[in-house]
Amino acid sequence: MRNIKLTIEYDGTNYLGWQRQKVGPTIQGTLEETLSRILNHRVHIRGAGRTDAGVHALGQVANFKTTSSLDPASLGRALNALLPRDMAIIKVEEVDLKFHAQFSAKKKTYFYQILSRPVRSAIWRNYAWWVPDRLDLEAMKACLPYIQGRRDFASFRNTGTSTRTTVRTVFEATIKRVPVAGMIRFEITADGFLRYMVRNLAGALVRVGQGRMSPEDFVQLLDARDRSLAPPPAPPQGLYLKEVIYD
Amino acid sequence: MRNIKLTIEYDGTNYLGWQRQKVGPTIQGTLEETLSRILNHRVHIRGAGRTDAGVHALGQVANFKTTSSLDPASLGRALNALLPRDMAIIKVEEVDLKFHAQFSAKKKTYFYQILSRPVRSAIWRNYAWWVPDRLDLEAMKACLPYIQGRRDFASFRNTGTSTRTTVRTVFEATIKRVPVAGMIRFEITADGFLRYMVRNLAGALVRVGQGRMSPEDFVQLLDARDRSLAPPPAPPQGLYLKEVIYD
Repeated sequence: MRNIKLTIEYDGTNYLGWQRQKVGPTIQGTLEETLSRILNHRVHIRGAGRTDAGVHALGQVANFKTTSSLDPASLGRALNALLPRDMAIIKVEEVDLKFHAQFSAKKKTYFYQILSRPVRSAIWRNYAWWVPDRLDLEAMKACLPYIQGRRDFASFRNTGTSTRTTVRTVFEATIKRVPVAGMIRFEITADGFLRYMVRNLAGALVRVGQGRMSPEDFVQLLDARDRSLAPPPAPPQGLYLKEVIYD
Repeated sequence: MRNIKLTIEYDGTNYLGWQRQKVGPTIQGTLEETLSRILNHRVHIRGAGRTDAGVHALGQVANFKTTSSLDPASLGRALNALLPRDMAIIKVEEVDLKFHAQFSAKKKTYFYQILSRPVRSAIWRNYAWWVPDRLDLEAMKACLPYIQGRRDFASFRNTGTSTRTTVRTVFEATIKRVPVAGMIRFEITADGFLRYMVRNLAGALVRVGQGRMSPEDFVQLLDARDRSLAPPPAPPQGLYLKEVIYD
């Protein structure tokens, strides 16, 4: 038995998200079907992060077990030849049998792209959140120290889900302009993320940028640990799973 | 009679190009139909550059005549509400009746994006030319002085078309890395472009970057003024009409 690790890029626009579903195409389902065709046995893959519909990945990681002796480079070429063009395999590696894409992950980095300009964009419609307001970047940046370190992110979790703990450790969080006119990127690295956490944070940070919330309100919201007080999540198309880091 | 100037952004992926055709959706056709619905009369628009299928625009310019008294801001809002999401109106201005989007243009800027990395990209599949080789940027840059100034670009025109003159003046041409891993951008500003000129230049520049042509070969190719000697054009999805400049 061998354990294979995949690093995957995808454009999430046309998928119902990572997790296999009966009602439509998903990243996991498409990968499993394609792997099964190549390897001639049923394949079950585990992903590092279950991205939602419309969310993209530059470096999603998944693993699966196989008895096939196909070398990693050939498997990568076969996958890239057979997968739809909005999915691409960046790397294939044989790893220790104990490696688990989700549980072995030490850190993950997501970024969220916000396009701040008066009119909507044709090119970026599926790749950023269009916000038709000027954003006060300094006010948004003033919130970042409060989400760094070990914190309780209960205010920024998904409504209606119960997780064992809502405490996560954020190692780094930055907001900067990228060289596309009006484009702002919020990037965050943590030991784990609650469902909707990045989109909820991005939604609140944009409120601060718009002047509809102060950085003090943001801190109060975080301290309240009550999801019902937070603004709605930012839409999925701005979110990218950038990287999953292992030991 | 009023003359209206539009600045338009579009994702060319799902269009047969700028020019109206009977067989499928085009940018001009979609704009004309939408304008006709809003203004209640047939509209004929002229574009500054006739982009090909799959080519994008950040700042295409077009103009049309109308008897409507609808103010530019309202027209822009109506267009952005009714146009497909892969087209967006950036600006609407009333201009002098003599303004002609194509003939009044003094300069145009195009850029061409090349993604140089070992594996194909899911995110950039429709927005850059994937080249699975390392490119020697210095060799590519060494070609640029030879295409600047007033030159005969006969070697880089479209095959099978005859234009009055193949002489154009290039005001600026640059090659640089943009902050996406492996992404290279060739940008060129000229008083006009032959059909396929930017894609033919990009195709030859990539050959130089790959070491399959030397900068000296590139100069010889330019001097030969013979399209049949040039490498094939770069594919459309890397090309963007960035800006059209008027007096």
